[in-house]
Amino acid sequence: MTYDTLVHNGIVLTVNPAFDIFSPGYVGIRSGRVAALGPVDPDGARPRAETCIDARGGIIMPGLVNTHTHLPMTLFRGLADDLPLETWLHDHIFPAESRHITPATVGWGARLACAEMLLSGTTTCCDGYFLEDQVAAAVADAGMRAVLGQGVIDFPAPGVPYPGDNITAARDFLVRWRSRTPLITPAVFCHSPYTCSPETLRAAKALAAEHGALFQIHAAETRQECDASRAHHGLSPIAFLDRLGLLSQGTLLVHCVWADGRDIARIAAGGAAISHNPQSNMKLASGIAPVTDFLAAGISVGLGTDGCASNNDLDLLHEMDTAAKLHKVKSGDPTACPARTVVEMATIRGAEAIGLGAVTGSLEIGKAADIIVLAADAPHLVPLYHPASHLVYAARGDDVREVLVAGRRLVADGRPQSLDLAEIRRQVTAIARKIRPSNGS
Amino acid sequence: MTYDTLVHNGIVLTVNPAFDIFSPGYVGIRSGRVAALGPVDPDGARPRAETCIDARGGIIMPGLVNTHTHLPMTLFRGLADDLPLETWLHDHIFPAESRHITPATVGWGARLACAEMLLSGTTTCCDGYFLEDQVAAAVADAGMRAVLGQGVIDFPAPGVPYPGDNITAARDFLVRWRSRTPLITPAVFCHSPYTCSPETLRAAKALAAEHGALFQIHAAETRQECDASRAHHGLSPIAFLDRLGLLSQGTLLVHCVWADGRDIARIAAGGAAISHNPQSNMKLASGIAPVTDFLAAGISVGLGTDGCASNNDLDLLHEMDTAAKLHKVKSGDPTACPARTVVEMATIRGAEAIGLGAVTGSLEIGKAADIIVLAADAPHLVPLYHPASHLVYAARGDDVREVLVAGRRLVADGRPQSLDLAEIRRQVTAIARKIRPSNGS
Repeated sequence: MTYDTLVHNGIVLTVNPAFDIFSPGYVGIRSGRVAALGPVDPDGARPRAETCIDARGGIIMPGLVNTHTHLPMTLFRGLADDLPLETWLHDHIFPAESRHITPATVGWGARLACAEMLLSGTTTCCDGYFLEDQVAAAVADAGMRAVLGQGVIDFPAPGVPYPGDNITAARDFLVRWRSRTPLITPAVFCHSPYTCSPETLRAAKALAAEHGALFQIHAAETRQECDASRAHHGLSPIAFLDRLGLLSQGTLLVHCVWADGRDIARIAAGGAAISHNPQSNMKLASGIAPVTDFLAAGISVGLGTDGCASNNDLDLLHEMDTAAKLHKVKSGDPTACPARTVVEMATIRGAEAIGLGAVTGSLEIGKAADIIVLAADAPHLVPLYHPASHLVYAARGDDVREVLVAGRRLVADGRPQSLDLAEIRRQVTAIARKIRPSNGS
Repeated sequence: MTYDTLVHNGIVLTVNPAFDIFSPGYVGIRSGRVAALGPVDPDGARPRAETCIDARGGIIMPGLVNTHTHLPMTLFRGLADDLPLETWLHDHIFPAESRHITPATVGWGARLACAEMLLSGTTTCCDGYFLEDQVAAAVADAGMRAVLGQGVIDFPAPGVPYPGDNITAARDFLVRWRSRTPLITPAVFCHSPYTCSPETLRAAKALAAEHGALFQIHAAETRQECDASRAHHGLSPIAFLDRLGLLSQGTLLVHCVWADGRDIARIAAGGAAISHNPQSNMKLASGIAPVTDFLAAGISVGLGTDGCASNNDLDLLHEMDTAAKLHKVKSGDPTACPARTVVEMATIRGAEAIGLGAVTGSLEIGKAADIIVLAADAPHLVPLYHPASHLVYAARGDDVREVLVAGRRLVADGRPQSLDLAEIRRQVTAIARKIRPSNGS
């Protein structure tokens, strides 16, 4: 029995249903999948493998799953902060998008995002943007796993100047990417119930269902959105989507900050999942989603960073810390969102929420070898009593030393193997100079 | 004109009253102080210096100031999380402290804390614990700047078995350290209004005033504390401290989560400062301090991490991100706690809150050369539009590459120069094995 790759000499956090931990343990990889894993027999010989990755006492775990991103928005990281929502959107983000979002800039922004995600332990993301072909090409170059949705909105958008073409563009994207590479799963990204007509919403969901694809949609993000929905439709955004029949399995509702008890019951009954983006919701002052209620209702909840214009990073370890602490202080209960639950939200529950629960999100025999290794020797991770506690409350993106996707080593000893960081930095810096000519002050 | 050290080729964020930024700029250091700083003349020669530190386009700024720590509690990092407050304290933290806190363990825990703080950009901390002589020795070894308070509590404590000796022990500490090294400023750490009698509280403040020392005290941290104070004294904890005459300048109130409008007016009138510890308050589900009201009242507010049993790290950059986002979502106002204010809270306002505003917290001629350099080339910091935005919303502890305290280089290219990390790790791991014999699962 020889493995292609063996990851050994670390604490294996499987995130399987029993949350088994092998300390020390190993993972054997063959043909891109987990072929074996378990505790190390202290008297036994090390299994043979073509490549051995020594975790040096660190944490070996499934790669993180970021359930909501707009990858090219790395280009706008820190361009405009601390502003009223309308000023931020209409005076900064929308003008920057309309002037500077092109196929070329989308590709470089997405490459930068992939580099940042891989280096901080994210192996799978769920993205929605426009010109999504360029995002897909960048993700494919990076070697990451992703669910990618071409944007559908009833306004002129980059690459889709005539909104009447939005469903066609989404269909073309699904067709082009459905069997291009096993790592990319095409999807539909419907912007929101307030930027799409009921006809567009129904057509987008029907298109997704026809292709067995994920239907992503922002919903109930702000109080203003909910007030407007009630004024226009007499219904909350979630109730409105329910009336249109859009809360079935295969729908990913992003944000749901203002979902009330009846909305939550509708989501649970329909089978839709939720992407929770705590830092973006905090930074835009949108509110705090009732995540403990989502979990109690049995809804599948994953974590997301949102785009870099409202976060401003793609570091899921940081998001885990925020989620664990935010729901404690919101509920007044220090036992809310414990470390194990948050680790699951950032891995297996996130994978389930975007339809990849059978493929990734945990280390189990037969699943994809999407694996990360975190060093545990930096001062902020000493001592180590419980690995799940450290992942949530102390670890940082830079503790990630090794990243494998489908068995391919994309980060080795902290260095990206599939992307040219210097070139990405050069290209994005040049784009940023055009976006804002006088930088650095 | 030759400098001892020149830090150049970076964006200088002075955090002076005008918040001047020199891009690119330099800082010249002589005899441990800032001797010159300003923009670089593109046609001019580089100033001469014995040592040149090339910031490589990164951010040059004052070292961060952590206004509330219990350094030795790194030993309990991740020992017990996600528990009801009483269980956490009485079944885990107090027993661990009574069994395992000795002069030797305090020293190693504090050394670990210093390594973590320096590597993440903190040059000054304000600590309160017991056996504070050992903390002071560790901090002196590390070469950091610190305000250190020997604990005063009306219970038996490590090193002070008879509570009747607590004021004497605090006085002895003040006398021993008042002129041992210019980097250490001794202080008094009175635990809280609910663990000290009115006589002890008055005596501790009188002792601090007599020595011109800071008087630190936890206050209004939890709702339960406030309810109990009202039941016992008919007053909120802040009003109770006010009645005892303890809210004058030189007092640092830690937490103030449950300070109401009248409490805030009392604090502002008295001249006391506040240490805000958002992550600890979130993790313990204590609540969210009304920081925007503190700032509006003109109170001096610094940031703190609290101890590692309730955070679980000492990374002030992370705390800055949390503070900026938390007060936006609390107030529903995305303009609350903007980046500049948060950078000031983590530097000059923190320094002012602990009585060191004339010494550190900003880069101005004549002030101590407490300087950090952050690299700005990691993917999560690209592109760079506004350095203050990046510091608050995107930077991580590991972006810190250089750290100087009073002109002495304590971190060079990310490596600690004054501490033996491997030995600290070995010692703390051995202590942790005694605290919890079966680790890693």
